[in-house]
Amino acid sequence: MKNKFAERARIVKSSETREILKVTERPEVISFAGGLPAPELFPVENLKNACNAVLDEEGAASLQYGTTEGYIPLREAISHRMKGIGINSTIKNVLITSGSQQAIDLTGRLFINEGYTIICESPTYLAAINAFKSYDAKFVEVVMDDGMVMEELEKKLNNHPDTKFIYTIPDFQNPTGRTLKLERRKRMIELANQYDVLIVEDNPYGAVRFAGEELPPVKHFDTENRVIYISTFSKIFTPGLRLGWICADETFIEKYVAFKQTADLHTDSLAQRITAKYMEIYDMEEHIKKIKAVYKTKCTEMMRSMKEFFPKNLSYSEPEGGLFIWVELPEGIDSTHIFTECLKNNVACVPGTPFFPNGTQKNTLRLNYSNMSNEKIIEGIKRMGEVLHRELEKELTLL
Amino acid sequence: MKNKFAERARIVKSSETREILKVTERPEVISFAGGLPAPELFPVENLKNACNAVLDEEGAASLQYGTTEGYIPLREAISHRMKGIGINSTIKNVLITSGSQQAIDLTGRLFINEGYTIICESPTYLAAINAFKSYDAKFVEVVMDDGMVMEELEKKLNNHPDTKFIYTIPDFQNPTGRTLKLERRKRMIELANQYDVLIVEDNPYGAVRFAGEELPPVKHFDTENRVIYISTFSKIFTPGLRLGWICADETFIEKYVAFKQTADLHTDSLAQRITAKYMEIYDMEEHIKKIKAVYKTKCTEMMRSMKEFFPKNLSYSEPEGGLFIWVELPEGIDSTHIFTECLKNNVACVPGTPFFPNGTQKNTLRLNYSNMSNEKIIEGIKRMGEVLHRELEKELTLL
Repeated sequence: MKNKFAERARIVKSSETREILKVTERPEVISFAGGLPAPELFPVENLKNACNAVLDEEGAASLQYGTTEGYIPLREAISHRMKGIGINSTIKNVLITSGSQQAIDLTGRLFINEGYTIICESPTYLAAINAFKSYDAKFVEVVMDDGMVMEELEKKLNNHPDTKFIYTIPDFQNPTGRTLKLERRKRMIELANQYDVLIVEDNPYGAVRFAGEELPPVKHFDTENRVIYISTFSKIFTPGLRLGWICADETFIEKYVAFKQTADLHTDSLAQRITAKYMEIYDMEEHIKKIKAVYKTKCTEMMRSMKEFFPKNLSYSEPEGGLFIWVELPEGIDSTHIFTECLKNNVACVPGTPFFPNGTQKNTLRLNYSNMSNEKIIEGIKRMGEVLHRELEKELTLL
Repeated sequence: MKNKFAERARIVKSSETREILKVTERPEVISFAGGLPAPELFPVENLKNACNAVLDEEGAASLQYGTTEGYIPLREAISHRMKGIGINSTIKNVLITSGSQQAIDLTGRLFINEGYTIICESPTYLAAINAFKSYDAKFVEVVMDDGMVMEELEKKLNNHPDTKFIYTIPDFQNPTGRTLKLERRKRMIELANQYDVLIVEDNPYGAVRFAGEELPPVKHFDTENRVIYISTFSKIFTPGLRLGWICADETFIEKYVAFKQTADLHTDSLAQRITAKYMEIYDMEEHIKKIKAVYKTKCTEMMRSMKEFFPKNLSYSEPEGGLFIWVELPEGIDSTHIFTECLKNNVACVPGTPFFPNGTQKNTLRLNYSNMSNEKIIEGIKRMGEVLHRELEKELTLL
């Protein structure tokens, strides 16, 4: 068949990380590769009660077509949560999406023409890279330590006048686990205003802070409605229901709605109502406290084990929330090789390279601590440590 | 802000029909405007039982991230249904989508480059027009009576060598309620083979046939894996859960999966498992029989009322399934004006113009019979009849 697919089909491939995850699903493998929340924290019984209440009280309405914008009580509950973190909004600023991945995809669709520039952290979230690439975006990466380095951001804004937006994950970033400093949040807004660009603030992990001081989202400092805030119930409730949201200027939301109509008409009515009902009859904040406590323990255990079992010449992030730790190996070490060796030792991580949109850095690894038991965390890090000691010594011998 | 949105944002507007639907939601209005299934047919209690069984038996797994391809037992159940209507497939040919709207959207994404031609029925499904337009497709319309007229289709294929696919809704089409004849199904395949184009068979209504003889889907006759078959649980189970599927050649499915990953990662895990469990413990075919019986009564009642109350010089389709009747008014009558006058009389329909991708025909209306009680159907058609008699006489006086 002649020219079978559209041009964009050449760009989009099945995510490498997802392919890696398939290999790591063997039961004997201790996997730090995924980004799955701890399933033992899903409130199965309470969710069941909420679901039964919805079906008993709302019946057929909960199974009928709904509006593209989303179920009003859920949008109200989200708007209320937004206020709690310092973002003023009404339901007119809130659109329910089919997971925050859809919010990211619709953002590309709404704002990106071929060749437009997106400025992002280096590295950044893999599925956002893939979504934006499918709209032919160019990526300009900004080096990060405690979030993007603002002097570097300014340079890039200067050099790339075709920049459409800054894409940032300010809290416990995926993949690095790092957090954007308070002063930098304010500065990012100043720069966006000055250079007349938007900010896409992707914040799936902000609610899961288990150490350090709460920081307001970037959007809290937004003076010109330039920040499109994206979040999700995946990390604070369940990912399976696929519920995310966009909180943004009303004129943006109206356009998002038009695109969401063409994408999937609306998000699952029952899932929306279950979540709204859950938030009505249970205390979501109490539930999040439980998640934080467990993730704190898991993260602490992983950090402790890394200090015990890993070679001393590695550096890694020390997250105060979220799901990930980022490991930087000595230069010259290829993390894909480390990944392969680890897998032989029945432990899995994710090589960092795909998280760099322009594919530059080879010596990094992402570790997830949310999905394994404490025992497995210790054992898995020990197994990784053996591989790392051996491979790093080999490298030393070669020098 | 400079050039705020991407080019494609100019093309996509909030669907006119959806905007119309908002006006028709006043409680005093009898509405034939929407395309909503009868809510009294949703199996609320059985769905609740299925949901409780899923949460009791599968617990956290039903709330965790899932694979992009979809929940295997649901793909198996779909593959089995496909066999039942004469389509051979394995789960490798089946991708679960977030409603069939997502299947349509991903199809545009996967196959349409700017300016590519889609050949479709004239008129055709509005939300498909909007989705494909967002990928800058050109539409070539083929006149229809009992489905597309094949001589016309061949002419258009001849004149438009840049045609990517034929988009067809063969059974009880939205908006016309018309069905593609058996011989034409075979001929469509021959033409697709000859002109080397794909066929996108959108078949949401095929399972809801309440009169006439069963016809195999177009894909049944597919000899070169050219048919991409799209369907949904919206009309046979519930639309609120947003579950559709694509059944197509494996090489296509692999590409769809990559795009679905960027679009929303995967479809709601709980909704998929509820539906699979429902099909395991209840008889879906029995449930569909109930739907058919009710829709047959509603359709018959509407047809009967139209014969009683409408002017004699109108023509309309006589559907054997699905949800819609199509009304053709005398030339020169503007259906948007009829719509406005009907609304004053507290009855609503949808003007047909937006269903023509190139916006040509003005004198048509779509009526939905699935969502109103028999009493309301009779009363609503009576009210419409008053308007139509008055407006058609006015027109006659002007001549």
